[in-house]
Amino acid sequence: MLLVFAHNGLADTRPDTGLTPASIDHARQLRDLAMGGTMAWDIVESLTTEIGPRLAGSEAEARARAWAVRRLTAMGFDKVRIEPFEIQAWTRGAERAALLAPFPQPLEITALGGSVATPENGITAELALFEGIDALKAAAPGSLEGKIAYVSHAMQRSQDGSSYGFFGKLRREGASIAAQKGALAIMIRSIGTSSHRFAHTGQMRYAEDVAQIPAAALSNPDADQIERIARRGQPVQVYLNMSPESLGTVSSGNVIAEITGRERPEEVVIIGGHLDSWDQGTGAIDDGAGVAITTAAAKMILDAGKRPRRTIRLVLWGAEEVGLLGGKAYLEAHRKDLDKQIIGTESDFGAERVWQMTAQVSAEGQQVVDIMGELLAPIGVARGDMDKSGSGPDLTALVEAGLPSLRLVQNGMDYFDLHHTPDDTLDKIDPVALDQNVAAYVVFSWLAADSTVNFRSE
Amino acid sequence: MLLVFAHNGLADTRPDTGLTPASIDHARQLRDLAMGGTMAWDIVESLTTEIGPRLAGSEAEARARAWAVRRLTAMGFDKVRIEPFEIQAWTRGAERAALLAPFPQPLEITALGGSVATPENGITAELALFEGIDALKAAAPGSLEGKIAYVSHAMQRSQDGSSYGFFGKLRREGASIAAQKGALAIMIRSIGTSSHRFAHTGQMRYAEDVAQIPAAALSNPDADQIERIARRGQPVQVYLNMSPESLGTVSSGNVIAEITGRERPEEVVIIGGHLDSWDQGTGAIDDGAGVAITTAAAKMILDAGKRPRRTIRLVLWGAEEVGLLGGKAYLEAHRKDLDKQIIGTESDFGAERVWQMTAQVSAEGQQVVDIMGELLAPIGVARGDMDKSGSGPDLTALVEAGLPSLRLVQNGMDYFDLHHTPDDTLDKIDPVALDQNVAAYVVFSWLAADSTVNFRSE
Ligand SMILES: [Zn+2]
Ligand SMILES: [Zn+2]
Ligand SMILES: [Zn+2]
Ligand SMILES: [Zn+2]
Repeated sequence: MLLVFAHNGLADTRPDTGLTPASIDHARQLRDLAMGGTMAWDIVESLTTEIGPRLAGSEAEARARAWAVRRLTAMGFDKVRIEPFEIQAWTRGAERAALLAPFPQPLEITALGGSVATPENGITAELALFEGIDALKAAAPGSLEGKIAYVSHAMQRSQDGSSYGFFGKLRREGASIAAQKGALAIMIRSIGTSSHRFAHTGQMRYAEDVAQIPAAALSNPDADQIERIARRGQPVQVYLNMSPESLGTVSSGNVIAEITGRERPEEVVIIGGHLDSWDQGTGAIDDGAGVAITTAAAKMILDAGKRPRRTIRLVLWGAEEVGLLGGKAYLEAHRKDLDKQIIGTESDFGAERVWQMTAQVSAEGQQVVDIMGELLAPIGVARGDMDKSGSGPDLTALVEAGLPSLRLVQNGMDYFDLHHTPDDTLDKIDPVALDQNVAAYVVFSWLAADSTVNFRSE
Repeated sequence: MLLVFAHNGLADTRPDTGLTPASIDHARQLRDLAMGGTMAWDIVESLTTEIGPRLAGSEAEARARAWAVRRLTAMGFDKVRIEPFEIQAWTRGAERAALLAPFPQPLEITALGGSVATPENGITAELALFEGIDALKAAAPGSLEGKIAYVSHAMQRSQDGSSYGFFGKLRREGASIAAQKGALAIMIRSIGTSSHRFAHTGQMRYAEDVAQIPAAALSNPDADQIERIARRGQPVQVYLNMSPESLGTVSSGNVIAEITGRERPEEVVIIGGHLDSWDQGTGAIDDGAGVAITTAAAKMILDAGKRPRRTIRLVLWGAEEVGLLGGKAYLEAHRKDLDKQIIGTESDFGAERVWQMTAQVSAEGQQVVDIMGELLAPIGVARGDMDKSGSGPDLTALVEAGLPSLRLVQNGMDYFDLHHTPDDTLDKIDPVALDQNVAAYVVFSWLAADSTVNFRSE
């Protein structure tokens, strides 16, 4: 029986998946080549240096699209194009805050994305302190009249990033909850784990039928300071002045490039990262890294000269940060060929190594995922849940519409030290870890695209 | 012969030093008590929380003096007082910079202390890049006409902080060197080792007879970015706008508290740290820690109930950051009793452990330093050079005027990660390391003050 198996433990023939031993070997060779060094670093170096920050809807995001089209065309991809869509743009203005009493001193803050401005002369008010979102919700209606709500809700680290969903609720929903209680504004402890003096921004949303109040985040050291001062028992008075603006309707877009499949070109496997970033850092780990990893993986497959049966579609998403708008626009644009979207995944969780693979696919698809798992184990990727939905933020809408999902989970223990801060810059990326990510993406992309299975559970 | 020695290896009698076995035992007991926990953390917590940033000459520095007088009086010290002096005050205004070409994006900068402002509309000019201060010096006169000088001079770490003196020259002198070559302004890579997006400030000086041009520091990631861009070969154009102001003559002061000596009250041993800080952080490691360590050490000696032969004088120096002005004022105020200043040292190199003791004293004084060394070795302090002058920045003027010097050298490997940045906040301090510092200072203070030796080399 042992003779039936190749030296590497994989069956010689895989009639159920369409993956030949030569195809699996090709994936393995590409993996090893990637581990030896890729162009991913050069790509993220170029994007973060030549474009820098690229806020959704900004002129810089447009320059990033032009950069992507230029580079992807030069690399020799097929059908390089922009799929445009419109968004409501927002821009950060000046922002300043200070403690006025009992101990006057400046505070390090930043406006949350989408926040309205304060009045021109700012807001001066007493803080009402809450230890978390539940305490804020429990406040009596009207009890925050004339006050600024301060909410702590201190985010803790998690390798898989799951604590972000939990703690992030405060950033997304806090302003409207506070407004319901009568607050003039809300200042939250940053949803992030940086111990440095950076406030973490990120998108917030106003509920319908509630007053829109300004929403800011404080750096963790500043939040500590406010809490130390409040524990001394005197009322805490603060000044808050921010001038963000809504700019109305502007253009954004997804940049797309392909490796056309040799047998089933109409069937597409989607990989990618998002091109936009917040405005303060240069979007290196969020998400220049994802752009670089997936572009480098696609380019390696292209350069190896063998085309997979299906098309590999690289999507560099636009306007992710402000509401996953690129993903939603893609869904709208591709409603009529949704069944041709075979499977997809996105790299948008930093630049550390992939340590786990999770998936939710059909039994037939699971055979291909098992082969991926065998090829990924030697580069440190463990098998996680095989009934776990999710492929990255920009694919959320597509996954909800039925796209099979697989995720190459990066180690996110330190991701929220940099996430959405001015400190998200190129120097934080380890090129060796980046190459390991590329290796994982070539294995996924090649095997998914060269297989014939239906990953959808009907 | 062994019987002559106590169990701890110290001679039973020390007729040459005035230190009795009981006195040495007292120092040892205080040391051990300090290692078990001190009030140093509470002091630095109070100063950084209740005052926060305290720029030399500011109203906040005045509040820090009032805080110190209040606390030192409540602690029961003798002769708590302020020795006032006048300084020329400076204040930071708004500051903003951006790359305009070839790749437009914002830059993270800060004005160096003492810098003049740019014109109201800022300066737009091409950068002339230099890899270090020597290259800048070598530029031809007039060669920087119409340009902004950019100088890298990347500071490296050193445990004893000696690299700061070397690399710091650029911050102190760079503007005038660049002005001599015709530059409109100078932007330097921060004199500091932070890998985060913080520009390090610090005092600069204009030479006489040279145009005064604006001087700014860039964060290390921003300096990397500029250098990456410049290597691509196109001219680099930047915009710089800063509005710092000189405020004229204002008050500062040194806060002094004493433990009056029982035999020679007119002879004083000086310890202390500086009360002022830069304006962006809360001055935790620079130098709330030094204030806390030396105050806690003096308070332990006071509370133990035994008075040393000589007076221990705690000096919390004012206006250190802007030119060691407190130290210079003290020298002026005490010129007539300089010979009564027996020996001194200052804690102003962060909050990490003391790892080394250096000194430059008389042969007679060296006997006391040897006893200090024996008591400090068990808490990890090695003996360094015994012919090395220097006791901390505020004692520089006094040491030049003949004050014997001893330094309890803290581990400064990471000091310049935080030094003179907004990130110098309380959370960066390890309370256990702080207690070890207090232990070193009680040993020094008690033994120096209870001895009878003359530390001066005649
Ligand atoms: Zn992202
Ligand atoms: Zn993000
Ligand atoms: Zn200092
Ligand atoms: Zn300093």
